[in-house]
Formats: sequence, structure tokens, C-alpha cells
Amino acid sequence: MPDEMTVARSETGDPLLLTPGPLTTSKSVKAAMVHDWGSRDAAFLRINREVLERLPAIVNGGADYVTVPVQGSGTFAVEAMLTSFVPAGGCCLLVINGAYGQRARRILEIAKRRTVVCETAEDTPPDLDRIEQVLKADPGITHIFVVHCETTSGILNPVHEIGALAAKYAKGYLVDSMSAFGALPLDAPAAHADAVAASSNKCIEGVPGLGFVICRRAALVATDGNATTLTLDLLDQSRVLEKTGQYRFTPPIHVIVAFHQALTEFFAEGGQPGRGGRYAGNCQELIDGMRAMGFETLLPDALQAPIIVTFRMPADRRFVFQTFYDKLKDRGFVIYPGKLTVADSFRIGCIGRLDRSHMRLALDAIREVLHELGVASVAAHKAA
Amino acid sequence: MPDEMTVARSETGDPLLLTPGPLTTSKSVKAAMVHDWGSRDAAFLRINREVLERLPAIVNGGADYVTVPVQGSGTFAVEAMLTSFVPAGGCCLLVINGAYGQRARRILEIAKRRTVVCETAEDTPPDLDRIEQVLKADPGITHIFVVHCETTSGILNPVHEIGALAAKYAKGYLVDSMSAFGALPLDAPAAHADAVAASSNKCIEGVPGLGFVICRRAALVATDGNATTLTLDLLDQSRVLEKTGQYRFTPPIHVIVAFHQALTEFFAEGGQPGRGGRYAGNCQELIDGMRAMGFETLLPDALQAPIIVTFRMPADRRFVFQTFYDKLKDRGFVIYPGKLTVADSFRIGCIGRLDRSHMRLALDAIREVLHELGVASVAAHKAA
Ligand SMILES: Cc1ncc(COP(=O)(O)O)c(C=O)c1O
Ligand SMILES: Cc1ncc(COP(=O)(O)O)c(C=O)c1O
Repeated sequence: MPDEMTVARSETGDPLLLTPGPLTTSKSVKAAMVHDWGSRDAAFLRINREVLERLPAIVNGGADYVTVPVQGSGTFAVEAMLTSFVPAGGCCLLVINGAYGQRARRILEIAKRRTVVCETAEDTPPDLDRIEQVLKADPGITHIFVVHCETTSGILNPVHEIGALAAKYAKGYLVDSMSAFGALPLDAPAAHADAVAASSNKCIEGVPGLGFVICRRAALVATDGNATTLTLDLLDQSRVLEKTGQYRFTPPIHVIVAFHQALTEFFAEGGQPGRGGRYAGNCQELIDGMRAMGFETLLPDALQAPIIVTFRMPADRRFVFQTFYDKLKDRGFVIYPGKLTVADSFRIGCIGRLDRSHMRLALDAIREVLHELGVASVAAHKAA
Repeated sequence: MPDEMTVARSETGDPLLLTPGPLTTSKSVKAAMVHDWGSRDAAFLRINREVLERLPAIVNGGADYVTVPVQGSGTFAVEAMLTSFVPAGGCCLLVINGAYGQRARRILEIAKRRTVVCETAEDTPPDLDRIEQVLKADPGITHIFVVHCETTSGILNPVHEIGALAAKYAKGYLVDSMSAFGALPLDAPAAHADAVAASSNKCIEGVPGLGFVICRRAALVATDGNATTLTLDLLDQSRVLEKTGQYRFTPPIHVIVAFHQALTEFFAEGGQPGRGGRYAGNCQELIDGMRAMGFETLLPDALQAPIIVTFRMPADRRFVFQTFYDKLKDRGFVIYPGKLTVADSFRIGCIGRLDRSHMRLALDAIREVLHELGVASVAAHKAA
């Protein structure tokens, strides 16, 4: 047994999830699920309507925007957005600097939509000049897609600036805001966004099972006939919901009821500024503490979103990531492997029902584990 | 206040859902959701593996079959099945006698797959001779699709007989067993089924949010390159799960953990024979009681599956369905509107965490409501 062992647990006795989601959620969010509702039940339909009505305000979407839910995970919402908005004869400019941008490309390729790619390395912001050149050179481009916070690295992408280019060249604008939605400011009308995709289990702190796309109504109506599937057809989903208040296909009722409770708690915390403020505090605490131990972040602070932080893998051979991970898990902290191609790394999330005190406990646990492993220096390999 | 008022509630104080799903589930199934897990958490991955491994046995699928989960509702699983199995140059013979058969047709039309339809009325079983003629006449047909229990009416379709035709003419065979899976016998290998689609929230009595397709491995492997989307590509989903034990995209963790508990309770009840036996008892109790009041079932007993029963709407003008529905809801019984084109009707389900005693209470409540409405005779309009 180690001399000291920092152990943490959530309100429901579970390890804390320092991951990009699914996250640690409040007990009250999960407790909301211990009931049954019929899918046409008036109480459930009211709860669902409130969920759909509350979401656009988070990105300053007024009456011009409508929430279209998509049963399934966030990727289902992204695929629904891309295949509903980009028509057969269209072409999407993909701004890529990570795995979620690559995924959007794959979705469009499977849908046989033409794509043009503006790619930068995973630790590098999009090149706005290059994007503008490409837009000028290729008038066949109909849409631009970008990931808000690329969870691959944790980088914050300039969604408003890219939106200004979309407006200047009159392109449709599609944003995957999955890991940022509710934590980072996004003004959908100001960013000229036609659609913003996110999910229940990220910064709103619900449980997984529902994706959604907040759509500009006029742009959504113009997607008529585009969709390549029945289930991922956003316009059809929206029309039936607006007409009947009911889903076309069975909704994940318990997930939606939990999401409703999560939204109530989100607004009680002050909405995006409140939630984002807490996460920024978590992120600062984490980065400061890790740097004090000698860890190096992949990103400079100016590019770092307060969602998930990528740390370079220590060079010391005594630092075996799986052992580090397991020993942290034993103490009640679940971290995340890296997903980078540019550098060997691991990630620690700042989101979910966690505050600075949890981050301090995590830092204590990390210090203990490094001591147990006999790791004296966590300096990384020099970047390749 | 009425003289007597029969009131029922589930274990968690909710109205009883006499519907085709989402259903009344046990308290223990829902209580399993009051925790958080990471999507790569070893405990969750074990739970998920057990879910996937337990399902094929329910349709006698041995090692030749594999479960491919699909985040989303049952329709997502059906669309994944149809778009993964029927290739671009293929043609699917659709056996249709209700809304779920029509939905499959729409899915294939959107996917631009050729279809041939053998349709009968909603109260009429498929015409096996006609199906065989069509198979003989059109050698371009590659697949046959049928709905096991057409929930539109509650009719039981001859899945094994149609499977014999599929085998005789060497066609792929795709079954939507959504509302029957786990309650009605289905021997996938004997029925020559290549794929059987169902979901978490029907007769296994889980909560909604996960569809799945039980696939014959050899047939699944042959679907390479067919899928029209990323998220609904069954082969890709299966390959990643088999290789890594993890989902490609965030799974609805809480729904899956509840489904695991539901499967444990399902096997404890004796699996399909036990579960089906309880539902058959519920159905008998319901039909006997309703007939004793004078209600008429749409289907003759020989065609009736013990899942959901369609009753003809009484002709008496004092029988206002919405009032009947609301008064039953007040008493804790949620029934279901009709979905038929052939006759005005309503439906009462026999599935979910309910037994004969609940059905007797429902019958008591129905008698009271008829009395309150002043309905003396529930004889239906003569069929058109
Ligand atoms: C930016 C981004 N897009 C898409 C996704 C995919 O979401 P899901 O795993 O729910 O399908 C994620 C998940 O982390 C994400 O961070
Ligand atoms: C036979 C059948 N197929 C498909 C479905 C669609 O399932 P879901 O509503 O979960 O999408 C149902 C739902 O009742 C059904 O009964």
C-alpha cells in the first residue's frame, strides 16, 4: 500500500470522468431517468418541447433557429447535418485539423458529395487566407464545415472568422460544436451559421443518446429532397415534430428527460458564461498544476479551449501510460488516451460535474502515481 | 367523483403503458442507470459485450450470428439493415401488410434501391403463392424483407415460411422483428435469416435508445461497400467492435446498462418461452375481457400475435376515443390510438412489465369508463 492515496468518487460513487464525454453528470440528472413515459405522453412531450426550445438560445439563436434532435450519438447529428444540407450537386469545403474534421470528410465521401479540404496540422489553427483563396478559386463550393473545438487536440477553432468568410462568399455554413456547445461562446446568427451540431452528453452534462442540430429555419427548409436516408433527414424530422409535437421514431425518452434536468441545472449555473467559467477555472487549475510538475501542453495557451488538454507523453521509460492510467483509475480519476498523429500524448478533460477542487485532487493523485512509478522528470521527447 | 375508480401505478409510480413500446419497465432496469461510466471503461465494455453476446441466442443464432448494435431507435436499425445489406445493384422484395413494411419501402426508395412489393391488407397475411410467383418472375430480386409482428395491426406474419422461400430461391432474407423479438419464437438459422432487427425497448423490456441487428456473419461480411452512410454501416460498426471492444461513436451507455439488466431479468423469466408465455396470458385475459364487454378484435385469433391487440372503434357516438383515452390515463392506463387504414380502431398492448392482474385492472377501468361515458353497446360499425 502506498503511504498516501488520494481517492475521489462522484456523487453516485463512480470514478470521476476527466474525459471529453460521456462525462460525470449530477445525481439529479441521472435520477430523472427512474420513471417510464409513453412516447406520446403529454408530460414527456412537454419536457421534450422545453428541451428543443431552450437549446437555440445557448447560441443566441432566436426565432430564426430551430432545434432538430437526432436519436443516436453526436456523429449521427453530424452525418444528419452534412447529408441534409449538402445537396447531391453541392460541394463542401472542409476545414480540418483533427479526427472530427476527417470524420466529416469520410461522411461526405460516403454520401458521394464533392469535398475540398483546407487542412492544417492538429496543433495548428486553420489558415484563413488559404480558405479565402480556395473560396475564390472554386465557385462550385456551396458549404463550409468546421469543428468548433477539435477534441482531438483541444484546439479552439475560429468559428466566427470562418463564418465571416462563409457570409462574404455566400456559402452555407455548418459547425460541429459537439465538445464546445454550452461552454464556449458561439453566436450562430453573428457567425452566419446555418447549422450547429452538438449532443446531450458534453458540456450540457446530460447522458449520451441524443444528438441535435440547431438549424437556421430558412436554410433548413431549403434542404428539401437532399437527405440520403430517412432517419437522418433533418427536415422531415423537424416537420413532423413541429406539426405533431411527436417524434417520427421512438425517442430515447429517458435520455431526453435527463437532458431536460441537465439544461435546468445549466441555466441555474448561469448558462454558457457560468458553465464556461467553471470549465475555464478547471482548465487553469489543471494546466498550472501539470506544468508545475513539468508536463508540457501540446498547445500554447492562446489556442487552448477549456474543454480538454493534451499533454505530451513523458520521455522517461518508467512512465508507462497504461500503468499511469490504471493507477489513476484506481484512485477514481479516468483520463483519456491521445488521438494525435503529430505527437505521442494523453488527454485530461476539464468538463462535466467537476470543479477546481476535483482538479486539485486529480493533481494530487497524479503526483502520487508519478512517485510510485519512480518517474523523476516528465519532460517530453523533443517534438519530431 | 365516480362511485368506484380503479387506479393502477407501476413500481415507480407511473401509469402502466399498454402500448407497443416504450413500455413499462422494472424499477431495477431503470435504477441501473443512476451511475456514470466512461465509454472506454472496462466495466462498461464488459456489460456491453455481455449484451451483444446474449442476444443471438434468443433467435437460436449460434456462433454463426453476431449482434451489431445501432445507436438510435428501432428504425435506425432497420435502415442500417436495409442500406447495409441491399447493394446498389440489388432489388428487395418487400412483403407488406402495414405501416412498418411501408416504412421499409420508403427507406429503400430514399436509398435508390429497386423494390418489388407484395402487399396485402393490414388484416391479411402475406400471400405465399404470390410471393413465390414474383420470385420466379423476377430473377433480379436479391433480398426479401418482412415484418415479424406488424405492430400496425398486431398480425403475426409467417417469417419461417417466407424464409423457406428465400432459401429456395437463394435470396438474402431480412426480418424486422422489432415488436416480436424475445416474445415470439424465431429460429434465425432455420428461417434462413441473414439479419434480424430489433430494439432495446420492446419485449426485452429495456429503455429506448438502442437498436440492433443480429446478422449472419457470412452475409454481413458480404455487405462490404454497400452502406450509404457512415453511422448506419453495420459491417464497419461490427468490425470496430470486434477488434477493439469499443464503439466507433459514443454509445448510449445508460441505455445499454439498463438493457443488460433487462436481459438478466428476461433470462431469469425463462427467456423467450417464459416471456412469451406471460404475454400470451396477458393477451388472452385482455381479449376475453374485452369480448365479454362486446368489443370486436380486428384479427381472428389465429392471426393475432400476443403483442398488441387492435379493437374496432365502437359505433356509439357517446364513445369519444379521446375522452376514453384520457379517463383511462387518469386511472393509470395508457392505451394507443389505431394506425390502420382499413378500419377505425384503437390498440391495447400486452407487453412490458405487466401480468394478468394488471390486465384485469385495466378491464375494470375500461368498464368504469364506459359506464361514465354512458356507452351501452361497444359494437363496431360494420366493416366498410
Ligand atoms: C468535435 C466532436 N465531433 C463529433 C464527436 C462525435 O460524437 P459522438 O462520439 O457522440 O458520436 C465528438 C465526440 O467527442 C467531438 O468531440
Ligand atoms: C415492427 C416495427 N418496426 C419498426 C418499428 C420502429 O421502431 P422505433 O419506433 O424504435 O424506431 C416499430 C415500432 O413500434 C415496430 O413495431
